[in-house]
Amino acid sequence: MMAKAAPLSPLAPAHFPHLPPIAGVRLATAEAGIRYKGRTDVLLVLLDEGTQAAGVFTRSKCPSAPVDWCRAALKDGTARALVVNSGNANAFTGKKGAEAVALTAELAAEAAGCAPAQVYLASTGVIGEPLDATKFKGVLVETAARVSPGAFEDAGRAIMTTDTFPKGASATVDFGGTKVTINGIAKGAGMIAPDMATMLSFVFTDAPIAQDVLQGLLAKGVVDSFNAITVDSDTSTSDTLLLFATGKAGGASATEASDPRLPAFAKALDGVLLDLAQQVARDGEGARKFVTVDVRGATSRQAARRIAMSIANSPLVKTAIAGEDANWGRVVMAVGKAGEEADRDRLSIYFGGIRVAVEGERDPTYDEDKVSAYMKGQEITVAVDIGLGSASDRVYTCDLTKEYVAINGDYRS
Amino acid sequence: MMAKAAPLSPLAPAHFPHLPPIAGVRLATAEAGIRYKGRTDVLLVLLDEGTQAAGVFTRSKCPSAPVDWCRAALKDGTARALVVNSGNANAFTGKKGAEAVALTAELAAEAAGCAPAQVYLASTGVIGEPLDATKFKGVLVETAARVSPGAFEDAGRAIMTTDTFPKGASATVDFGGTKVTINGIAKGAGMIAPDMATMLSFVFTDAPIAQDVLQGLLAKGVVDSFNAITVDSDTSTSDTLLLFATGKAGGASATEASDPRLPAFAKALDGVLLDLAQQVARDGEGARKFVTVDVRGATSRQAARRIAMSIANSPLVKTAIAGEDANWGRVVMAVGKAGEEADRDRLSIYFGGIRVAVEGERDPTYDEDKVSAYMKGQEITVAVDIGLGSASDRVYTCDLTKEYVAINGDYRS
Repeated sequence: MMAKAAPLSPLAPAHFPHLPPIAGVRLATAEAGIRYKGRTDVLLVLLDEGTQAAGVFTRSKCPSAPVDWCRAALKDGTARALVVNSGNANAFTGKKGAEAVALTAELAAEAAGCAPAQVYLASTGVIGEPLDATKFKGVLVETAARVSPGAFEDAGRAIMTTDTFPKGASATVDFGGTKVTINGIAKGAGMIAPDMATMLSFVFTDAPIAQDVLQGLLAKGVVDSFNAITVDSDTSTSDTLLLFATGKAGGASATEASDPRLPAFAKALDGVLLDLAQQVARDGEGARKFVTVDVRGATSRQAARRIAMSIANSPLVKTAIAGEDANWGRVVMAVGKAGEEADRDRLSIYFGGIRVAVEGERDPTYDEDKVSAYMKGQEITVAVDIGLGSASDRVYTCDLTKEYVAINGDYRS
Repeated sequence: MMAKAAPLSPLAPAHFPHLPPIAGVRLATAEAGIRYKGRTDVLLVLLDEGTQAAGVFTRSKCPSAPVDWCRAALKDGTARALVVNSGNANAFTGKKGAEAVALTAELAAEAAGCAPAQVYLASTGVIGEPLDATKFKGVLVETAARVSPGAFEDAGRAIMTTDTFPKGASATVDFGGTKVTINGIAKGAGMIAPDMATMLSFVFTDAPIAQDVLQGLLAKGVVDSFNAITVDSDTSTSDTLLLFATGKAGGASATEASDPRLPAFAKALDGVLLDLAQQVARDGEGARKFVTVDVRGATSRQAARRIAMSIANSPLVKTAIAGEDANWGRVVMAVGKAGEEADRDRLSIYFGGIRVAVEGERDPTYDEDKVSAYMKGQEITVAVDIGLGSASDRVYTCDLTKEYVAINGDYRS
């Protein structure tokens, strides 16, 4: 039943970055034996009183039980605990799913000494199998006794499914004269890995920011990061991004979006989110190349995004990149099918800054050897100038290799 | 540069069907050496005077030069000749593309003794390379001298690119006391094969039907046939479906959509279109399994179509089927991402009529051995009951295999 562990992505960073402690955030991991043996599969994060929470979730019309739970919990908006398990997504588990979520929250609330509504939950793993939440009973109490401020790398590992490396990012920024820290972890792989689900990311800061302001920052920050990546166009039922602000750095809480301390913070937050999102694309199942798609000259930002996503999701563009082929004809195809305004005779297409097509035909001057050499690299940028307007956008993806099919198709054969 | 010939699809029909001659339609093929050596790459069809034409084309915003030409030609609506070449799509070729099209139409008009506007054109093959239409000069005159009424299988072969088998279908039907025939040929493979493009199909009948009525029949017929198939979600710049009615079977021309002779004809036409469309899916690049996706219980026909296409286009559903895995969790995922109304706790999912999930969770009664045995077959039906309404729809696709990636990614390496 279990997938073979995939080899480390060639696009993985050299090492997990340094994530310093954040006041008010303590973490520990445990082996609950939900599905995996000999590895951690539960993350417990305890958050100090007063912590504000924000979240964005999958757009799926069939979300998992934990997503339902978090959406409800956000109505209150204070957080004291986060429990994440890997190995079972608790998705499409009917009434049992809601029951498992309620029991987990109750157990975590006991362990953390808070109300169940202050507990946030995320699950990733098999879909459609009931999650036996009674397994958490002893585990959460025991884990709560072991929490420490610096366990972010362990946390990143405990939430992995078919990820080949743990994902973390950190930034510090001046917040009205006080240094604040932002730490994030994430897991991804495919939108749904072999029988496993989901992109999950959890970001923590000690900055003092009120919930509605925090939610606004997160909603804005996700547009050009987690909403700008695609591995295979498939959307998990469980995608969850949560942002917790403990306020323990001190200072007055930012209660207005116009607070002058926020622009610098937002920029740092956006950087952390983008870093994490790119790491998810770099660990896309079977990925050998990290692909940036730039669209400019579009009639609107929305048009640029749709065209960029059409290119980034095209199996033919992605297999061409896997084959190290600067196949601009397939890029034209993907522009054409996006449904947005385009004029084939105004299109220009670039690989790595080398223009290969201009005004609707092959650029007669381009150096094929130079493009071929570029396509052998691990970082590929495809740029398209639509030639109709001044709007632009950028998204990220990976190539589509035989390993993707093997990971997602071979595991039961 | 050339792809290796792929082995015959295991889903290919045992033999090309019998396509009888159609009065007013004569065909011949030739080797123009556009790209391939040692095989035919040009099809010329001569149509008797009075032939009515109808057409539907790619929705791409960057259509090929021949698509532009055909759209303009349909404004007149009579047809005397059809020229199809494989090896070069004449797409994204700028002004040269329009010039090549005009020259080809002129040469064909000379050969056929008609006006250029009565010539229809289609090209499939490499994108972005200028098509040297002067190659057609001698070829079309010589080919016109060899046309014969029965050369449909040869015609099917001449328009192939990476198709592994020629595609044909035929039907006869009573048209107000007169027997009329409908013959069709098609090519497909991927929406864009290795550097090759396109789904093309040409259908001929001797029934007497006026152009606007013919167009209406075709537009309706395409909905549940060519618009209900997908190989990889990619849309060619050159997709073309043309229907020609010579009227040579005799009888008064059907000039009204309410003509009582039309329902039986429309049914037969729909059958030919569906047969051809299914053959295209059966010859999808790397296909090992033919997949029918049935959606019922949706709130509208349009919702059912969008959900069905979301399932049929999901890389994770398609790789699971390649892996002979009845992975209903991925089907839920694809329903959820379609964006149409759904309630996960009302969904039921079936593989080959065996219910594997009901009311939002695994069907506790289902026989896993039976489902596993079913998944080993070549014809897979995935059915979803949304449980919210009474609308239904059906689409067709194939599985996603490593061979797809190899065909589309390896060919230059």
